[in-house]
Amino acid sequence: MWAVPGRHFLQIPGPSNIPDRVLRAIAQPTIDHRGPAFVALAREVLDGLQPVFQTSEPVVIYASSGTGASEAALVNTLSPGDTVLMFETGHFATQWRDMAVRLGLHAEFVPGDWRHGVDPREVERRLTDDRDRAIKAVAVVHNETSTGATSSIAAIRQAIDAAGHPALLLVDAISSLGCIDYRHDEWGVDVTVSCSQKGLLVPPGLGFNAISAKARASAAAARLPRSYWDWQLMIKNNAAGVFPFTPATNLLFGLREAMRMLMDEGLANVFARHLRFGEATRRAVAAWGLEVLCVDPAAYSPALTAVMMPAGHDADAFRRIVLQRFDMSLGAGLGKLKGQIFRIAHLGDFNDLMLAGTLSGVEMGLAAAGVPFTRGGVTAALDSLACETSAS
Amino acid sequence: MWAVPGRHFLQIPGPSNIPDRVLRAIAQPTIDHRGPAFVALAREVLDGLQPVFQTSEPVVIYASSGTGASEAALVNTLSPGDTVLMFETGHFATQWRDMAVRLGLHAEFVPGDWRHGVDPREVERRLTDDRDRAIKAVAVVHNETSTGATSSIAAIRQAIDAAGHPALLLVDAISSLGCIDYRHDEWGVDVTVSCSQKGLLVPPGLGFNAISAKARASAAAARLPRSYWDWQLMIKNNAAGVFPFTPATNLLFGLREAMRMLMDEGLANVFARHLRFGEATRRAVAAWGLEVLCVDPAAYSPALTAVMMPAGHDADAFRRIVLQRFDMSLGAGLGKLKGQIFRIAHLGDFNDLMLAGTLSGVEMGLAAAGVPFTRGGVTAALDSLACETSAS
Amino acid sequence: MWAVPGRHFLQIPGPSNIPDRVLRAIAQPTIDHRGPAFVALAREVLDGLQPVFQTSEPVVIYASSGTGASEAALVNTLSPGDTVLMFETGHFATQWRDMAVRLGLHAEFVPGDWRHGVDPREVERRLTDDRDRAIKAVAVVHNETSTGATSSIAAIRQAIDAAGHPALLLVDAISSLGCIDYRHDEWGVDVTVSCSQKGLLVPPGLGFNAISAKARASAAAARLPRSYWDWQLMIKNNAAGVFPFTPATNLLFGLREAMRMLMDEGLANVFARHLRFGEATRRAVAAWGLEVLCVDPAAYSPALTAVMMPAGHDADAFRRIVLQRFDMSLGAGLGKLKGQIFRIAHLGDFNDLMLAGTLSGVEMGLAAAGVPFTRGGVTAALDSLACETSAS
Amino acid sequence: MWAVPGRHFLQIPGPSNIPDRVLRAIAQPTIDHRGPAFVALAREVLDGLQPVFQTSEPVVIYASSGTGASEAALVNTLSPGDTVLMFETGHFATQWRDMAVRLGLHAEFVPGDWRHGVDPREVERRLTDDRDRAIKAVAVVHNETSTGATSSIAAIRQAIDAAGHPALLLVDAISSLGCIDYRHDEWGVDVTVSCSQKGLLVPPGLGFNAISAKARASAAAARLPRSYWDWQLMIKNNAAGVFPFTPATNLLFGLREAMRMLMDEGLANVFARHLRFGEATRRAVAAWGLEVLCVDPAAYSPALTAVMMPAGHDADAFRRIVLQRFDMSLGAGLGKLKGQIFRIAHLGDFNDLMLAGTLSGVEMGLAAAGVPFTRGGVTAALDSLACETSAS
Repeated sequence: MWAVPGRHFLQIPGPSNIPDRVLRAIAQPTIDHRGPAFVALAREVLDGLQPVFQTSEPVVIYASSGTGASEAALVNTLSPGDTVLMFETGHFATQWRDMAVRLGLHAEFVPGDWRHGVDPREVERRLTDDRDRAIKAVAVVHNETSTGATSSIAAIRQAIDAAGHPALLLVDAISSLGCIDYRHDEWGVDVTVSCSQKGLLVPPGLGFNAISAKARASAAAARLPRSYWDWQLMIKNNAAGVFPFTPATNLLFGLREAMRMLMDEGLANVFARHLRFGEATRRAVAAWGLEVLCVDPAAYSPALTAVMMPAGHDADAFRRIVLQRFDMSLGAGLGKLKGQIFRIAHLGDFNDLMLAGTLSGVEMGLAAAGVPFTRGGVTAALDSLACETSAS
Repeated sequence: MWAVPGRHFLQIPGPSNIPDRVLRAIAQPTIDHRGPAFVALAREVLDGLQPVFQTSEPVVIYASSGTGASEAALVNTLSPGDTVLMFETGHFATQWRDMAVRLGLHAEFVPGDWRHGVDPREVERRLTDDRDRAIKAVAVVHNETSTGATSSIAAIRQAIDAAGHPALLLVDAISSLGCIDYRHDEWGVDVTVSCSQKGLLVPPGLGFNAISAKARASAAAARLPRSYWDWQLMIKNNAAGVFPFTPATNLLFGLREAMRMLMDEGLANVFARHLRFGEATRRAVAAWGLEVLCVDPAAYSPALTAVMMPAGHDADAFRRIVLQRFDMSLGAGLGKLKGQIFRIAHLGDFNDLMLAGTLSGVEMGLAAAGVPFTRGGVTAALDSLACETSAS
Repeated sequence: MWAVPGRHFLQIPGPSNIPDRVLRAIAQPTIDHRGPAFVALAREVLDGLQPVFQTSEPVVIYASSGTGASEAALVNTLSPGDTVLMFETGHFATQWRDMAVRLGLHAEFVPGDWRHGVDPREVERRLTDDRDRAIKAVAVVHNETSTGATSSIAAIRQAIDAAGHPALLLVDAISSLGCIDYRHDEWGVDVTVSCSQKGLLVPPGLGFNAISAKARASAAAARLPRSYWDWQLMIKNNAAGVFPFTPATNLLFGLREAMRMLMDEGLANVFARHLRFGEATRRAVAAWGLEVLCVDPAAYSPALTAVMMPAGHDADAFRRIVLQRFDMSLGAGLGKLKGQIFRIAHLGDFNDLMLAGTLSGVEMGLAAAGVPFTRGGVTAALDSLACETSAS
Repeated sequence: MWAVPGRHFLQIPGPSNIPDRVLRAIAQPTIDHRGPAFVALAREVLDGLQPVFQTSEPVVIYASSGTGASEAALVNTLSPGDTVLMFETGHFATQWRDMAVRLGLHAEFVPGDWRHGVDPREVERRLTDDRDRAIKAVAVVHNETSTGATSSIAAIRQAIDAAGHPALLLVDAISSLGCIDYRHDEWGVDVTVSCSQKGLLVPPGLGFNAISAKARASAAAARLPRSYWDWQLMIKNNAAGVFPFTPATNLLFGLREAMRMLMDEGLANVFARHLRFGEATRRAVAAWGLEVLCVDPAAYSPALTAVMMPAGHDADAFRRIVLQRFDMSLGAGLGKLKGQIFRIAHLGDFNDLMLAGTLSGVEMGLAAAGVPFTRGGVTAALDSLACETSAS
């Protein structure tokens, strides 16, 4: 396994391919997390995250995976037995529901087919029907990493407003932040959950919450027990450039470097680049005669594309062949999609030739696995990439 | 601040000086956390942690700071309103008490003077008095990082047994594991809490729980809400070499390397080395005519030494001078000790000459800060180091 | 320029894409080049190079570029005014001739068209004609990096033997070692010249000479002045595990790691892998309707492919577009081929998907540069790669 | 040997302790040495070296050890049989003489006792006596790394001028550049030889020549054969930001970072810092009752201190004990001083506490080796360091 030459292609939808610059940054000697050098680091990353979330509200950083940040969004804003309106867009939305239940919340879980985003009309309908305001929060996943379908947060915001409902809006932007245009303030999001290892180009181990004033106010009344995830402790300490508990210093070194890279490229360019990659990938899938899982073109993800495996073929067997023969990791079908799809990630520190290599690995892998398909997907992708202005 | 030549001396009691080997290890490209290479990594670190804790019980690894692992110990074993017997050995014991309270537990907090470890007789007395078994857990800090006083976990275990009390024994070994002999199984500890950035030589961001069968059984009945910290999810996934949530892969790379280093040196040598450093440091303090905070020689910490600043002098002003003139970070007095002590850490990837440099910085810093002291501390320490067999 | 996302494709024929493992290895702290740790390092790399050269003769390592090692081959074996038989296979052969002339040697330079390797019959003819044995050495380039044409060292050896001529055989294996089967002993080579940054996977800065007993004997009589390049000093010191002058320690760290990688993969697999890449690349070139510079199929290089640019198009303008739009460096036409060809390197730490990305960049670049070509080169290459057993 | 905890103390007079920043810099992926990113790198290091040499003349960079750069100084300026006036200041001056002889030059070698620098009066006397101008160059070592004695280049310049002699002045500044004030232009040096691994903080593998107009003019007439070392090729290519042969790119990454560090600190501060370290070290040696090898206080080296071992004791046995017990490498006695001295390096990326650790290792090592000495050297050094303004 270890004697494989060349660079591994890490085409799972997170962790993404971490830039060398970031890897070197995290290899800096750890420093005193209460000293002046740390304070300078903390201020740069705390301030620097705001434009990435497109917010002027505080963003807190946990030493945790993204799941921890999802938990933080719930325990800081809600009380035992509170109802949260959630939507079955896929595996991660389902996991968030399971978490809510484990934490003692009541999840009103709107069923879905894992091939669409959230329907804003359903949001409006449910909230309008909730006359006694039992629903305390609406929790949606912006980019369902398990399906490659996005939901329109702007439209969901409008639906909430149209219903005149006071529920908080909690958004999981774990695999969209730094890939897809995301506007915490403009879209009136109350808590945005994200983490380090997707569009933010840092190895896993940092979780984020961007927090509106309304959410902070909710926290004062929220009675779910919390300590590690408590915003108040965090925000108070962050104001002084420190953390209430020892932070993951070396990952913060990486975050500083990654944010410099994102800003050097320009977020608009970053988003445009991901859109190009999504389009080119779908062209390849179409040329192969395969089907994209997401059936709503408006919801196509710029970060990853989930592809349906033809009936009678096991997507996981295909992925194993691709790993063994071409040293590329593709995303698995999760939960009820296990074995039925594979996911091609095209997010993060990624460029045209890496995408071409990725799609080549899929094309050769399909052949090697004996999956029926039509050749030419890579060529179709190259045509797509070539006909638009390159990001570089 | 950045033009300072040479290596920074990071002599706070954690994060410790991270070895170059570990820093290079964490700079490896992040891998698929569900692929075979990760499974091999996970098995090595999960199995490898057991001898470090001297346990054959499962050890779980969180993407979190040590504080998160402290929270995990409570929420997995206890129910709202449960009583935990805790001891005011210092700042971190107090913080753990505060956490317990925030989580809805009742903390029976035995007062202390921050200059001793836990008195096992007090443990026995309290438990004997607890006839209706209200106390569900005894929670103690093995090595109080804020004071440099250790508590005898073996003696506390005996006290619990002498009282015939069924309470769980929860131990914070955050700054002792990998520095001071620690025996999870032999001492009958139910949950040992630790983390990456002290004796385990890895940057902060990993928290650990070693968990006895009795603790796992308690978890089934414990009703504090939990999801991220839930042992069951973790242990079940770990059995397959994976994690329920994205792990901090790159820190795990570091952990693998660090455990290889600890095992290459041999834990017995590691512990003996720290004992030598503690002894030499106290010789220096005595020669300077200063006072060690810990007043019980049996409780002296091999990991750090807290030194009392003579009255009328500000320990933080002294520390600032040491940082500015000698590029060394010393530990601050925390909580009620702020400004009154400084802490010299001598733990982790540390050797005789680094200690000599450290104590030289303190000696020169005392002079530079105008603190009254007697010269010769470094010489006394060198004599102490020289008269014992070096660990190397 | 610096905000380009993703990994650069370094497809010049050396330096090749350096593996991350090697880059981390060279980042180890520099050590005492006279201490025991260095001696262990030196022995491992000195011994380890022998199987790479397929020799049991000593290999010396210079802190130098490959050009320095080429100079060492001449100054250790020859005297002022000596005649060397050299062959105009391309730019690097011409540079070696120029070097010989600068050093005061007489170069008998057999003209060539830069599209073939050395003709062994010409070697035999020249040597047979050299009745008074004026020719002291035959110097040939195994893999002409400027043209992608190889020469058969085995056939040249036979030609020398057929002529019964005592000339030394000096071979530049700079871009073949570690890519193409190379047998110093079996082929009776007297001095093999190579360096770190091509098939040996290490950044530039190390030059090598593998030296036959006959070459060492010649050195005793050779009168070209030499000091830094002197084999005798080097071999004598190397026997004790040290170097006469401070070695490039950190690059040796990299060399140790790289040789472990090559041996883990197995040299036979390494060579087979490069053959596959050469074949696939030529299929792509053919599909594009372009012409490979090398016109002798037996001489096709497995390490790189030089492609002729259609008349009226500037290869350097094309390369600039590829760099700007696709962040890939291609090799330039050197010397008299400037602007007329571009070179696609497929050597070193390289795999199928990296090659697919590389060829995709060429295909898109041809379109972007307005060069007339037929689409489908990448597809042809994928077919070629797929129909053979993968190396991984 | 590998299980030694903590940081190695590399206290040989080069390679010095390489800064982490530089080690990370050399771990960057190698780039195309003919592309625009390289040109930017080349320009920065080529321009940046000039202030370090205090020159406005060109500085060339070889992929070589310092010895290669010493050879370059000779072969570019001299012709076979030319006389060079050299001075036996120690081992490295002797090695340079040996090199000159090997290259076919005539070395007029002024004997010395290895405890002084060059006597400028002797320079003047020899040159004045050289009425037929046979002496073509005066070659001196600025800081004799083998003895810790410096020579006054300014005074030697004056002596040459006083004699009215046209000889070139060639200076080996290998272990002084970046440690000790060095002025190529002001002192009228024709060729300054240096390298990467001492005061310039980069691992070994780069050699430098700073070259006066007079030296460049000499090169036109100099007839020693040369190719790799030829200045003309180098200067011509450098003007375009490239190199005639593949440069040691990754070491150049390190050089760029190191020069930024030196400039951030400020050369005046760098020199003052080394002076402090020399003074403190000699105070320690005096307190131990040992003797410094250099007997001329005006010639004491700020970069290293050579200490005489008391009769009957083997310096190498002592150094072995220091390495085994304290993981510190000290410099050996070289050539005729083997076993009689040890050398304490205090150059490069070094600070007060590292020096304190270093001297502590010597003090404990003397005791461990049974060498008669008086305790208190470290204390004396701390007093010396403390009484002067810190460099930080």
